[in-house]
Amino acid sequence: MSIDPFVARFPAGTFPDGAGPLSGLRLAVKDNLDIAGHVTGSGHPGWAAARQAATQTAPVVGMLAAAGARIAGKTHMDELAYSLMGENAHYGTPLNPAAPDRVPGGSSSGSASAVAQGLADLGIGTDTGGSVRLPASFCGLWGWRPTHGLLPAAGMQPLAASYDVPGLFARDAATLLRAAAVLAPASDLPAPRYLAPADLWAEVPAATAATLRPFLPAADAAPLFPSGTIETLQPVFRIAQGKEVAETFGAWIRAAAPEFGPGVRERFDGAMALSAAEIAAAEAARAAIRAHVRSVLGRDGVIVLPTAPGAAPRLGTAGAEMECYRNTAIRLLSIAGHAGLPQITMPLARIEEAPLGLSLIGPPGTDLALMALAAEAFAAAAAPA
Amino acid sequence: MSIDPFVARFPAGTFPDGAGPLSGLRLAVKDNLDIAGHVTGSGHPGWAAARQAATQTAPVVGMLAAAGARIAGKTHMDELAYSLMGENAHYGTPLNPAAPDRVPGGSSSGSASAVAQGLADLGIGTDTGGSVRLPASFCGLWGWRPTHGLLPAAGMQPLAASYDVPGLFARDAATLLRAAAVLAPASDLPAPRYLAPADLWAEVPAATAATLRPFLPAADAAPLFPSGTIETLQPVFRIAQGKEVAETFGAWIRAAAPEFGPGVRERFDGAMALSAAEIAAAEAARAAIRAHVRSVLGRDGVIVLPTAPGAAPRLGTAGAEMECYRNTAIRLLSIAGHAGLPQITMPLARIEEAPLGLSLIGPPGTDLALMALAAEAFAAAAAPA
Repeated sequence: MSIDPFVARFPAGTFPDGAGPLSGLRLAVKDNLDIAGHVTGSGHPGWAAARQAATQTAPVVGMLAAAGARIAGKTHMDELAYSLMGENAHYGTPLNPAAPDRVPGGSSSGSASAVAQGLADLGIGTDTGGSVRLPASFCGLWGWRPTHGLLPAAGMQPLAASYDVPGLFARDAATLLRAAAVLAPASDLPAPRYLAPADLWAEVPAATAATLRPFLPAADAAPLFPSGTIETLQPVFRIAQGKEVAETFGAWIRAAAPEFGPGVRERFDGAMALSAAEIAAAEAARAAIRAHVRSVLGRDGVIVLPTAPGAAPRLGTAGAEMECYRNTAIRLLSIAGHAGLPQITMPLARIEEAPLGLSLIGPPGTDLALMALAAEAFAAAAAPA
Repeated sequence: MSIDPFVARFPAGTFPDGAGPLSGLRLAVKDNLDIAGHVTGSGHPGWAAARQAATQTAPVVGMLAAAGARIAGKTHMDELAYSLMGENAHYGTPLNPAAPDRVPGGSSSGSASAVAQGLADLGIGTDTGGSVRLPASFCGLWGWRPTHGLLPAAGMQPLAASYDVPGLFARDAATLLRAAAVLAPASDLPAPRYLAPADLWAEVPAATAATLRPFLPAADAAPLFPSGTIETLQPVFRIAQGKEVAETFGAWIRAAAPEFGPGVRERFDGAMALSAAEIAAAEAARAAIRAHVRSVLGRDGVIVLPTAPGAAPRLGTAGAEMECYRNTAIRLLSIAGHAGLPQITMPLARIEEAPLGLSLIGPPGTDLALMALAAEAFAAAAAPA
């Protein structure tokens, strides 16, 4: 049984109406972004119980509301955002309407589900390791992970601050672009140089690559990384993220001993047990990855890659299958995270009767140009739902 | 609904009784090993329909029968042995009694299922890429992949001859050892040098490694392979195996256009489309892997590694989760295959309420010594079922 994607729904008139380019759009807000007067629960009942209502609304939410979007509700999410699949052991799993026997993806599960179900027109989530991009791919939505630091982080519950960004979901490119234009500055990519690195495409099952290849533009297939690097992306992410996760939540976990669902507990334990030596090694490796990817992209490079290893996993998938899927997903998803780059996922394809996204990663700050490119060069090819 | 693991059951008295060390043991024979007077169906109805009854019994079966084992029946298997999970699209899936909601593993699915259910005491299978070792791990059995070429291959339907071996299942080490002693010469490993290579152990989920580590002896954790090699094990196997698979079955597939289940069709298509250049590169890489692993082992090295990435996948797992699981499994399983080495899997552990095997790989020809080592040094630690 799936749950209502909303933690709380707000009737029209709850908040003062703005007027502007987003008038008429209903906005679903992930419950790790502050809304004044409401507790920011972050997907965990123990965390929520220990919080006071927020006194300020997160600026990123406020900017959308000021441009006319109506805040329709706060949405469910994975526990403290430290998961990717949308199955919350405390609250349940929001529906993936595009594939009801599969997970919606997380951690921004409720915002993705609400938009995919048509209960909202815009969803706001947060993305540390893929928490906007993966649910967008799973639910058949457009998703935007902005350049790190481009949008204000105030009022957003941190998970791992050097990776965390707020991000958006929409059902169509035009709506996403309209909302993004309220948040981010204009940019351009006059002559994009497409890269479809063979090493990234080799990471996904052949059926996934075959499903997405028809949407590829002419592109340079040279490997993105030197041999041996791609295997480090996931462990470097796990450690560099884990160090910040432990800084964010370690004290509370030690004091409150909260219950966590399967996998989440193990990840927190792992994060809190990292050694200084492995953290230092991972941070150095991350800096090298970041510099390398930014250097390869330059000012005009656009990486085209699968958003996810395949269709969303079926509900209840666990153990080695899920961990294997998750680790492959993180290899793909951590590239933009490590390098702080914008990524747009486009709901172009279907596999196993479920959606599958194709992504663009662009140079820092090119968010709006990348989105326009996605809308113009790729959206026409989108498969009917 | 699971199926009877037997294609055909033979009542006592069907075959002349031998007498010897295996007297009283019921033997389940995979249906790709000839039994005189019966069609060798190899898991595909179209293949079976085009065959005459075998006129000779495969020597490896005959040797066990001559030592007193009673041939209890022929068992179901994956289509033409070109799969690893035990879900046959034509005939169905034999029960994994140790985890009824999970696959039994394949391709020797029926022999593993029959032994695990207590319908036979010994199972004979074949193993090209893991078809004995993986179902043994999944069903909680002892499993033996012999040194390549040690046992007679006559009367065994080839899949990829340079990898194919017959192999055995039993519920306990003593029975396995008793049967293996009928087939293989005595050998010894007086002072085994244990290797638990960190690169192999890093391939499995942390929960799998943590579950198996308590059973590890003191061992050298140095990586088995130079950086970048481990990622090649699965593609090299896919190509080098595929080339031989196409030689074995390509002509029949082109002529008869048989139906295959999901995944199997794609694997045959891939095998039949390999280029001479990629085959040559894979065969050269395989030769280098084989020489390297044999050189690291010398005459006394024993690699201790997880048999599988984790518990058996749940029934019906498909898509990227299954392919990811499969590819990780093949990385682990292809090491003995590439190098032609014996591997024993021991049902020592449990994870997610299902069995999980730990394996030993030894130098060529040390099969009985390796099995004795497994029985003496490891079996005492076996977890209760």
